Amino acid sequence: MEFSAYFPVWEKLTPPQQQTLLESAALRAVPKGTVVHNGSADCIGFLLVCSGQLRVYILSDEGREVTLYRLFPRDLCLLSASCILRGLQYDVTIEAEKDTQFWQIPAQRYKELMEISAPVANYTNEVMAGRFSDVMWLIEQILWKSFDKRLAAFLLEESALEGSTTLKTTHETIGHHLGSPREVVTRMLRYFQEEGLVRLSRGTVELLDTARLQALGEE
Amino acid sequence: MEFSAYFPVWEKLTPPQQQTLLESAALRAVPKGTVVHNGSADCIGFLLVCSGQLRVYILSDEGREVTLYRLFPRDLCLLSASCILRGLQYDVTIEAEKDTQFWQIPAQRYKELMEISAPVANYTNEVMAGRFSDVMWLIEQILWKSFDKRLAAFLLEESALEGSTTLKTTHETIGHHLGSPREVVTRMLRYFQEEGLVRLSRGTVELLDTARLQALGEE
Repeated sequence: MEFSAYFPVWEKLTPPQQQTLLESAALRAVPKGTVVHNGSADCIGFLLVCSGQLRVYILSDEGREVTLYRLFPRDLCLLSASCILRGLQYDVTIEAEKDTQFWQIPAQRYKELMEISAPVANYTNEVMAGRFSDVMWLIEQILWKSFDKRLAAFLLEESALEGSTTLKTTHETIGHHLGSPREVVTRMLRYFQEEGLVRLSRGTVELLDTARLQALGEE
Repeated sequence: MEFSAYFPVWEKLTPPQQQTLLESAALRAVPKGTVVHNGSADCIGFLLVCSGQLRVYILSDEGREVTLYRLFPRDLCLLSASCILRGLQYDVTIEAEKDTQFWQIPAQRYKELMEISAPVANYTNEVMAGRFSDVMWLIEQILWKSFDKRLAAFLLEESALEGSTTLKTTHETIGHHLGSPREVVTRMLRYFQEEGLVRLSRGTVELLDTARLQALGEE
């Protein structure tokens, strides 16, 4: 777990810049379920994921959640440092979805580096473009796709992520991911079960016909 | 209309970089209604607005539109050059909402500059963060706000933009902006009229009670 192996433009930094970055990056380990960053309350800096998985989501006043995207090893989290990215004023919550290790780089230190290093600035740019794209995809999902298609796509994505067709999850959790009430999820899952697409039991959703789910999700 | 006055980090470029940028930037004038960029079909480069107004929107397969944001003088448009922003793969349409003049900078030329100039990369970063923020705001509007609040907020925004409480617009146009069918817009506008918030006539919406619309939009 060398920091240099996780930071893509490491080789393009000068030795003093590498030194500064190494000294400021602190490796943190958090257990599953930890809220790493919470809205505008804190500015914990840039996070570079080493192992595990982070979920970035927004929260309405009434407590509804919608997942924006997930971060995996080698991914850089920008929104946890939105205080220094002028123009990026948005409150998100970041939660460890698995036991997670990440390097935490103080926002100000990273910003100083970005201001003098074109490679770091361009890398940051590229990361932001990727997240921007994720969020645009989400808008499309919300606006144009009907709920059955979104749910089918979500189940397949989860299945690929977990490497299993049996998902241990509740209808409420699925609802959080899709920004929909639990009742709507339950109704649609029962419909899927009647159609032979899934089998439901307490706390699990088993995918029976991934080919048809795929076709539905892509419609 | 000096290019240098519109490009915020001009002073931070070396004279040869300034020269390169000046030589590659072409000033274009397009009449209101011109579609400047259309989905992934083209990669026309970065646009720096000089005068007028551009609207950036997404389009569903069925032709429904949703406005992402507008660009005003001194704003830089990135999505028209998404081909070179690795990670930013998204199809948007960009249309001149007024007679508009802009400088068009070839994508590859701008990218070369960004790769060697930290100020240009950081400026581009800042612009992207701003657009990201706009899009996040839109998601919030779509997810959490009910349609009456969105419509009230939209009418006030248009009124501020036009400097008039009488808006020359159709229900269909409003629907395009908000991603809603015309019928839904008409129904809500009639409701607003009954409430004394607006007065409707052919092709215009007159705002009668901006204070109450404000209160409604902010609820």
